[in-house]
Amino acid sequence: MPMPPEFREIAKRVNNWGRWGADDERGTLNLIDDEVVRGAVATVRTGRRVPLAVPLRPDGIQTGLIPGRVNPLHTMTAVNQELFGPGTVATSDDVVTMGLQAGTHWDGLAHVSHGGTLYNGRPAASVTAHGRAAFGGIEKVRHIVSRGVLLDVAGALGAERLGGGHAVGPKELTAAEEWAGVRVRRGDIVLVRTGQIRVYLAGDREGYAHPSPGLSIRAPEWFHARDVAAVAGDTLTFEIFPPEVEGLWLPVHALHLVEMGMLQGQNWDLEQLAAACREESRYAFLLTATPEPFAGAVGSPVAPVAIL
Amino acid sequence: MPMPPEFREIAKRVNNWGRWGADDERGTLNLIDDEVVRGAVATVRTGRRVPLAVPLRPDGIQTGLIPGRVNPLHTMTAVNQELFGPGTVATSDDVVTMGLQAGTHWDGLAHVSHGGTLYNGRPAASVTAHGRAAFGGIEKVRHIVSRGVLLDVAGALGAERLGGGHAVGPKELTAAEEWAGVRVRRGDIVLVRTGQIRVYLAGDREGYAHPSPGLSIRAPEWFHARDVAAVAGDTLTFEIFPPEVEGLWLPVHALHLVEMGMLQGQNWDLEQLAAACREESRYAFLLTATPEPFAGAVGSPVAPVAIL
Amino acid sequence: MPMPPEFREIAKRVNNWGRWGADDERGTLNLIDDEVVRGAVATVRTGRRVPLAVPLRPDGIQTGLIPGRVNPLHTMTAVNQELFGPGTVATSDDVVTMGLQAGTHWDGLAHVSHGGTLYNGRPAASVTAHGRAAFGGIEKVRHIVSRGVLLDVAGALGAERLGGGHAVGPKELTAAEEWAGVRVRRGDIVLVRTGQIRVYLAGDREGYAHPSPGLSIRAPEWFHARDVAAVAGDTLTFEIFPPEVEGLWLPVHALHLVEMGMLQGQNWDLEQLAAACREESRYAFLLTATPEPFAGAVGSPVAPVAIL
Amino acid sequence: MPMPPEFREIAKRVNNWGRWGADDERGTLNLIDDEVVRGAVATVRTGRRVPLAVPLRPDGIQTGLIPGRVNPLHTMTAVNQELFGPGTVATSDDVVTMGLQAGTHWDGLAHVSHGGTLYNGRPAASVTAHGRAAFGGIEKVRHIVSRGVLLDVAGALGAERLGGGHAVGPKELTAAEEWAGVRVRRGDIVLVRTGQIRVYLAGDREGYAHPSPGLSIRAPEWFHARDVAAVAGDTLTFEIFPPEVEGLWLPVHALHLVEMGMLQGQNWDLEQLAAACREESRYAFLLTATPEPFAGAVGSPVAPVAIL
Repeated sequence: MPMPPEFREIAKRVNNWGRWGADDERGTLNLIDDEVVRGAVATVRTGRRVPLAVPLRPDGIQTGLIPGRVNPLHTMTAVNQELFGPGTVATSDDVVTMGLQAGTHWDGLAHVSHGGTLYNGRPAASVTAHGRAAFGGIEKVRHIVSRGVLLDVAGALGAERLGGGHAVGPKELTAAEEWAGVRVRRGDIVLVRTGQIRVYLAGDREGYAHPSPGLSIRAPEWFHARDVAAVAGDTLTFEIFPPEVEGLWLPVHALHLVEMGMLQGQNWDLEQLAAACREESRYAFLLTATPEPFAGAVGSPVAPVAIL
Repeated sequence: MPMPPEFREIAKRVNNWGRWGADDERGTLNLIDDEVVRGAVATVRTGRRVPLAVPLRPDGIQTGLIPGRVNPLHTMTAVNQELFGPGTVATSDDVVTMGLQAGTHWDGLAHVSHGGTLYNGRPAASVTAHGRAAFGGIEKVRHIVSRGVLLDVAGALGAERLGGGHAVGPKELTAAEEWAGVRVRRGDIVLVRTGQIRVYLAGDREGYAHPSPGLSIRAPEWFHARDVAAVAGDTLTFEIFPPEVEGLWLPVHALHLVEMGMLQGQNWDLEQLAAACREESRYAFLLTATPEPFAGAVGSPVAPVAIL
Repeated sequence: MPMPPEFREIAKRVNNWGRWGADDERGTLNLIDDEVVRGAVATVRTGRRVPLAVPLRPDGIQTGLIPGRVNPLHTMTAVNQELFGPGTVATSDDVVTMGLQAGTHWDGLAHVSHGGTLYNGRPAASVTAHGRAAFGGIEKVRHIVSRGVLLDVAGALGAERLGGGHAVGPKELTAAEEWAGVRVRRGDIVLVRTGQIRVYLAGDREGYAHPSPGLSIRAPEWFHARDVAAVAGDTLTFEIFPPEVEGLWLPVHALHLVEMGMLQGQNWDLEQLAAACREESRYAFLLTATPEPFAGAVGSPVAPVAIL
Repeated sequence: MPMPPEFREIAKRVNNWGRWGADDERGTLNLIDDEVVRGAVATVRTGRRVPLAVPLRPDGIQTGLIPGRVNPLHTMTAVNQELFGPGTVATSDDVVTMGLQAGTHWDGLAHVSHGGTLYNGRPAASVTAHGRAAFGGIEKVRHIVSRGVLLDVAGALGAERLGGGHAVGPKELTAAEEWAGVRVRRGDIVLVRTGQIRVYLAGDREGYAHPSPGLSIRAPEWFHARDVAAVAGDTLTFEIFPPEVEGLWLPVHALHLVEMGMLQGQNWDLEQLAAACREESRYAFLLTATPEPFAGAVGSPVAPVAIL
């Protein structure tokens, strides 16, 4: 059962395969060139920094809904251990077991396939239990520093947060852009705020998971038209969930990751940033959000920081 | 057996307890204020980005020398799984088990104690197996963005890398500063290059571990005088190992983390950065190096990026 | 705040410190000598085997109530990997992360301390994050094979299962013994059935956890009088929970593990065994229940088998 | 490239597919019926117990040779934690991350496939990263209790241990049987001693791994003729390694697990058992070796005990 025609038509319009060469594994991150970075740096005025990651905790975001995606189990392997004898310097050490996509994270390009194919037409079979992602692993990203733009859709619509059934499409994105007085441009990283993370921050993990507002299947074309480098949001599912079209699951994932070769971020806490942007009346800033370079990984935790 | 007089005298001179209040858990990171960040941003000229993290691999840096500090065991929990039925979008997911200090990382303030005491005079007993680091956990850091300065000691001395017995003290730091034509200032993050990581990159993990060049017990006073915010290096042990003074183990760790409240970074790959700095004839840049916010952790992997 | 007088008096009566020497780390398992084993073997008539472990699953018994005690996260590190080239034999391999006490398990002697003391008067401080249990680790057990006796308290009382508030003390144990027509003797391993595991098997993990029937603070004296080698049950908490005496938490744990030096087992599925015993009208059998020899562990999963 | 003719001919002779029904997942363990167990119990004379598992340690058997098969990383999640307030009972808790085949273990039937096929003709594709082993998972075993027979090949040949190039075939097995004065029969579990584990016990993990003596490709027919239920050995690779026939990798694994449906055990410490058997001049005993019931696992640690 292939993807439905509705999907296939959009896919054709946003497809980036071959755009940066047949061997490219970085996709739209290629849009961030030195000039884009200089432009991003030029947005900084006050030097104020806003962290966007949710703390990594054993009782974090995951509820067991996604099998194997476990919250961080963080344990000490030493506690004030005087390794070199009594009275010497004492060290504490720790380890963690966690789903790479358990908290605030990036989806890597190999996270999703459809019809047996990954970004750039590569076989999905290049991902294996043994070798992990041989193509498109998150370590290929190397660095993510660019201009960030907050599209505060909830704010633009005058809502504290969008409801569970609210799909964010071109109309909402453009409205948020206008409300912010900024125009999204080539190489930007767009942060789409729905306010849904407030549900998690208020302690309701189940309610946060779904029903969730999120990107519409119509959003990728908007991002493609603006040639953005990446998109991140403040929900677990990234796109609206349950989906808009019955039986068409995770179409935005498939369009972004497979067709466009564009990383997407989930569980980003945009609340403090929205407040800061409102205070300073500007929605563009320098954004730094490099994933940890896990070799062959399909995702990675990230600790993004907006610098205003 | 308390720390020897040599240590205690230096400790007195560099101690920062109470400097940012009795409850402070961020130490010298407090030196990075908005003005410092604006100055850091002003160093960017080309927009060129250089990543400083070593890829996280199962056969990575750790050799078993430090008990429990395991290399990343990265496994797939799903491989192209059509979660919603045949022909639907397929997802791959992964988990990792790793020592938080296994690769390129920051030591958090709770990583080391001496005489039962952590930074700011807090009891070492605030770290437990159950609660982990109740004081000084790495999540308190929130963000690390500042001016980075590469002190290429190996380069300044005309060596590809320093030998195992080479201690880097005030003389070497000043020489590297002069060689670079830059003066380290308040709030900077200093990257000290010995070239030792070349041993690891060449495939010799045992040789990389030790004997290792690294910071001398005399270095902390230099950093204190300049009021730097953090220091990172390209070795496993950070300071010279085996130590300069027989029986005085990890004195630099104790001075930085406990007395000064200053984070320190290990296993940073400074090779590409050194080449870039040499090419561009400048050694100061915007540095972004925020750790993952593991609640109560004594360290964290980090994916630093220098922006030139 | 020391343990209350009620506890201290019982503790004095059941204390086994020094009984098997000052260095003993096996406690009441010492009661299982070759003669006891021969007696256990002599109980076998049909050869029928009944497994007593609950399957180890990612969605197993643990609910997050006990921090860090995680259900098994079982992942594949290879799936039909043709390690030696195309067409060669293919292997699959797996790893697990789990709390050692997550499923059907034994509590080791170092699992509990009170007043800073473990079994045999050893300091609780001998357990550390770095060295784990230096005294009384589960690997010291070596083997557990003895006569098992099922005391089907629920069955004896004509109930499918005991209610949450039901404490099992000497009266209930003796009634179950008489109902079974067996007398518990030196070296036996007693399996106490409350039927509570039926709640878990029916899918209610929260309800299984508590309120729970279980052993009364009066039970240890009964076990001590009979000189049993170990006791296991079919609940999460082992003893009645919430406790009988307000503010006196886990007194049975403290009496068994610390005072008597007696291992105790939790989450044992005694349902099939109860049916088999009823069918065969006998409640004594050969029991094999050796923990995995994790060095320095305070507990271990176990896959017990009753041989009738 | 299919398996070579040499393999295929033996495969035909030992194949058990369909022997216990098309849906069978227990293979030769079906040979252990109640009568076999009664016979096993009848071998017990002294009641002496000998444990056969190597302690599970962070610095255990694995050297990194087999990717992902990690030694146990055992950490404390609580150390004498007074969970219910100061002065209350204190508990210690622990977790482990480990390869299921890292120490003394059983290979489950889904551990190996060839030509895309598992035991009983089932598709190898029934093993996935997401679902793990849907067919032949180790939890299907339920219990392993039978007569054990030690075939002390090294002892029979008058050697402390066999050399690395020594293949154990029908001739050696028969010689060991005659030396022991016992005849292997239907339902037995055969323990083949080469003495190789002495290399590990002496501290040489690399030397233990390979070159290794072990079963010859001719051994499975011998086991099939005797209708044994399972075979375990005291080496890492189980069969001779490097292999006897160049380019024919792990043929014994493929014959036992895929063709015969017979579990095989590795890294069993048979040294104490060999000494005990020699002392008591008998080589048959009651053996209990039930794996932990990991759902969908392709292997499991086991703590076997011989009862003499």
